[in-house]
Amino acid sequence: MIQIEKLVIVGAGLIGGSFSLALKKAGAVGRVVGVGRRAETLERARQLGVIDAIGGYDADTFGDASLVLIATPVGQMQAVMRSMAGLLGGSTVITDGGSTKQDVVALARAELSNHLDRFVPGHPIAGTENSGPDAAFSDLYRNRRVVLTPLPENTPASVAMVRESWETCGARVTELPAAEHDAALAAVSHLPHLLAFALVDELAARPNGEQMFSFSGGGFRDFTRIASSHPEMWRDIALANQQALSRELASYRSKLDQLQKLLDAGDGAAMEALFDRARIARAKWLPVSK
Amino acid sequence: MIQIEKLVIVGAGLIGGSFSLALKKAGAVGRVVGVGRRAETLERARQLGVIDAIGGYDADTFGDASLVLIATPVGQMQAVMRSMAGLLGGSTVITDGGSTKQDVVALARAELSNHLDRFVPGHPIAGTENSGPDAAFSDLYRNRRVVLTPLPENTPASVAMVRESWETCGARVTELPAAEHDAALAAVSHLPHLLAFALVDELAARPNGEQMFSFSGGGFRDFTRIASSHPEMWRDIALANQQALSRELASYRSKLDQLQKLLDAGDGAAMEALFDRARIARAKWLPVSK
Repeated sequence: MIQIEKLVIVGAGLIGGSFSLALKKAGAVGRVVGVGRRAETLERARQLGVIDAIGGYDADTFGDASLVLIATPVGQMQAVMRSMAGLLGGSTVITDGGSTKQDVVALARAELSNHLDRFVPGHPIAGTENSGPDAAFSDLYRNRRVVLTPLPENTPASVAMVRESWETCGARVTELPAAEHDAALAAVSHLPHLLAFALVDELAARPNGEQMFSFSGGGFRDFTRIASSHPEMWRDIALANQQALSRELASYRSKLDQLQKLLDAGDGAAMEALFDRARIARAKWLPVSK
Repeated sequence: MIQIEKLVIVGAGLIGGSFSLALKKAGAVGRVVGVGRRAETLERARQLGVIDAIGGYDADTFGDASLVLIATPVGQMQAVMRSMAGLLGGSTVITDGGSTKQDVVALARAELSNHLDRFVPGHPIAGTENSGPDAAFSDLYRNRRVVLTPLPENTPASVAMVRESWETCGARVTELPAAEHDAALAAVSHLPHLLAFALVDELAARPNGEQMFSFSGGGFRDFTRIASSHPEMWRDIALANQQALSRELASYRSKLDQLQKLLDAGDGAAMEALFDRARIARAKWLPVSK
């Protein structure tokens, strides 16, 4: 099993904190240092045992790090990369947990240009609607997929280290070009978040919004669960993957235009056929319902 | 506690079966007879103990029933009502579990015109994406809301009997005019179902649909859970509540038009504000996450 002498997580929240806890549980990490914007969050993470110590943007923290995971919202990554660039040791491997990859790659090319052999972009497809160190737990990544989008410059050893770290957390690791990752995630993650936020905001603005929510059941609750996600993080994702997400939103709007026509025409057969195709596809492709 | 000597459920699936199991568990029902379209479903319900006996459209089944619950898809209710109308005893109370109410009221006025004092329309806001007698369980209605939309003709005793039956299942019972019920449910239930079906069907039609589904996480799984719902039932609901649902779909499409403009303009501040409003509203109105 991989042994990480010193791990630095930038952002000690759900993603970074759960990575740390999983590696600690596996006995795969020596020491975990947390870095972040808010002192009270880091202090809380230390109290919870998510990190062993609080670090900062200094040579002490980054100079001898074996692995650095950047687990902040994508919108903060440029500043984070810039702050750490001059401090990283010659053998430190760097990865990130950003939900979009082409933009992170572009940032890394600009800000970590001396470290591209050891910056391996990644995206753990896992999460909950909760955030912060209190939300972190060691099993978050168990049987979840992690996509790595390695750079041509990456050394095989760097890619292997990041891959093995995630596998040690229980994840299934896939490699994919960054553009393909972003297109797929726009469809299955970023668009649904936009749709859920939009529905809740639409209903919340009604004079009788409260009454309507009171008549909602489990379906609405599940459908809108992701509307409780972190607004700043999802703003960053929407902007970072703007083009692919814009195409997906436009496609979906066309689909709803068609559905409105079917509904207004009272075309029950066509609606039932659509519902049936969806049910069959979901059963085929998401066979293991959690 | 209420005592129901003989309960007849028409449709021994998730809704009817769970009603029966809850009343049986509470010791509130003497004998449960199941009626339905498919012999094997009724046989399965009998094997599972969901019903005690299989009945049919005859005086034996309906003549001495204390309570009849019509728990079929709304599209079958006209035929069901017509078949039972001449068989009902003089003191039998009838209710239904349909997800739409104005249409069921109209059907009852046409088909059960001699029984309007004892036909109390209802809608248990509970369910899962599963259907059939195997999906039924006695706790389905615990802490769930049931909306009754009583008719002016209803005797107070009939309404009380239906209310107490649901309360015995653990449900919270509310009364509401049928039109208000349908408008609220169009927004918080019927529209989300359409949106989930549409998203899955849209992605399933792509050449790389399978790959895209493979990158989906828990958010997508929850968002699309209701796309595994019963296609025929949801076709019936869409047609039955067509006007209110059409208005909701049109409103939502306008909302998405606005969101597309924000996204394409790269207006991060406005998107974040929308996401934040949604998160706050959801936390306020759905405080007890299941």
